[in-house]
Amino acid sequence: MKTSQFLADYINNAISEIQYPASPRGLYEPIEYTLEGGGKRIRPVLALAVCDALGVPLETVKYQALGVEMFHNFTLLHDDVMDKADMRRGKPTVHIKWNESTAILSGDAMLTMATQLVCRNAGDKTADALELFNRTAMEVYDGQQYDMDFESRMDVTVDEYINMIRLKTSVLLGCACEMGAIMAGADTFVRKAFYNYGLKLGLAFQLQDDYLDTYGDPAVFGKKIGGDILNDKKTWLLISALEQDDKGELAAVIGKDIDADVKIATVKGVYDRLDLANKCHELIDQYAAEAIAYLDELNLDADAREFFIDLAQKSCRRTH
Amino acid sequence: MKTSQFLADYINNAISEIQYPASPRGLYEPIEYTLEGGGKRIRPVLALAVCDALGVPLETVKYQALGVEMFHNFTLLHDDVMDKADMRRGKPTVHIKWNESTAILSGDAMLTMATQLVCRNAGDKTADALELFNRTAMEVYDGQQYDMDFESRMDVTVDEYINMIRLKTSVLLGCACEMGAIMAGADTFVRKAFYNYGLKLGLAFQLQDDYLDTYGDPAVFGKKIGGDILNDKKTWLLISALEQDDKGELAAVIGKDIDADVKIATVKGVYDRLDLANKCHELIDQYAAEAIAYLDELNLDADAREFFIDLAQKSCRRTH
Repeated sequence: MKTSQFLADYINNAISEIQYPASPRGLYEPIEYTLEGGGKRIRPVLALAVCDALGVPLETVKYQALGVEMFHNFTLLHDDVMDKADMRRGKPTVHIKWNESTAILSGDAMLTMATQLVCRNAGDKTADALELFNRTAMEVYDGQQYDMDFESRMDVTVDEYINMIRLKTSVLLGCACEMGAIMAGADTFVRKAFYNYGLKLGLAFQLQDDYLDTYGDPAVFGKKIGGDILNDKKTWLLISALEQDDKGELAAVIGKDIDADVKIATVKGVYDRLDLANKCHELIDQYAAEAIAYLDELNLDADAREFFIDLAQKSCRRTH
Repeated sequence: MKTSQFLADYINNAISEIQYPASPRGLYEPIEYTLEGGGKRIRPVLALAVCDALGVPLETVKYQALGVEMFHNFTLLHDDVMDKADMRRGKPTVHIKWNESTAILSGDAMLTMATQLVCRNAGDKTADALELFNRTAMEVYDGQQYDMDFESRMDVTVDEYINMIRLKTSVLLGCACEMGAIMAGADTFVRKAFYNYGLKLGLAFQLQDDYLDTYGDPAVFGKKIGGDILNDKKTWLLISALEQDDKGELAAVIGKDIDADVKIATVKGVYDRLDLANKCHELIDQYAAEAIAYLDELNLDADAREFFIDLAQKSCRRTH
């Protein structure tokens, strides 16, 4: 079994080898900029790892792994326009560096390029791979829409929130895993088990993201701590706290234009009183355990099993 | 051979039968609004007409025709955001009626839905249909990028302009025609001839659009006359006039914030002096003739041949 680092290097290399048309530069330059901006590459690594675990060469799923990563970066590009985010991975976002029209159009092109990559060299797997990819894409849009809908709501439930992150984030990790299984020629049972592993991993992954935004180490996290609180973002922490906000302590600061440090301290104070940091990690551990349980359904050798267990455990404890 | 009206009714009926998920409404309502907003439906009509001409039931290309129309409407939705257009087909655009994020996300969903439609019931034609569709989509983005690039340039040539409208508009009409041929099981030669018919038709169609924006009858055209002139839009008329603007008459008003009526009258005055309305129509007629010439390569019965000739001639003389 290849290491996680090997697989990340493999995909970064494949990304750097993508050939873009020479013109119009205004369309393709922002795409290169976005894709080469880095990121954890967890989705393509999952697709490659599944192929590797099933004893099939990495090349088998190379273009599909690229397609999933291209799709992920397309969603980041358009989400950054919708969220009016200025920075991504320490660099100005496309709509800041260029302009909004460029961000929209280059994103559109990335979605079509992602579809082309998913179909590339897929042979008799094309229909299955594309069906999974398109279905997942629709779910991701649903998730983004729910996320936006939540902005204007104060009564979002934890169940609704988990369903939203399942759609917005987790299904694409599930898709990446199943894509590896499809390309490796695995049967439906194996495909489904890998999909569910990715899905649960995605839930743990996103909740850790929420956790780090409030409780991360600013020196390691890479962006300012407390951004979600300042933006009144409906995260698991805030929604859980709102459900128990009997004294209206949170309602008094949410949506209000008050001093940033005061707001962060107030909201964090409520979280701490409710012991939400620990409760969040209990939930993260639960999802990671559920992800790992799906591995039992698969007849993996010790090496491969270890890889996926390790990945799940690391995702729960990552600091950036 | 079915009439153009029959085919338009057929596709409008198919559009009204599309089933959307019940939620999130914020994502799917703008899609219904956009698609049911009308339009000429020329692209799906072309796909259906080709199937009909080749003696194959309309159902054969039904979903691919819908996919092409869905794609076209997706591009309008995103173009309207980029152009900051407030109205489309007499109704407020999506980013005005809802907001910009909705317009971006609903457009993204339309692109994925278009891809799903192109693949639907396509059987062993899936790979060919999808390859054509994705390639065309990339060309349309290239065209939109060139169109935006032209905004800040005063030295655009007529050749560059024709290449831009070929990409932005014509290739999708070519794609619609070839899609009909692919689904009907036609060979490469027939596919290519229909593609080229659509491509040339598209050039005539777009030039007539440019013409109408300046010379149309306001009572019939459906939008204000002179919008392109006021926006300094690099149309065939303006580019041709700029190439001969020895006295700098145009350069003096372009990009200037002067009275709308004065600007329109000044620019139109230059066009008239250069006889550009007639020259534009000569070019339109030339492209229509080239489109019709491709029909000679096809062994169509008189009825079908008449249909495509009629469509090309009407496109050149349409008033809205």
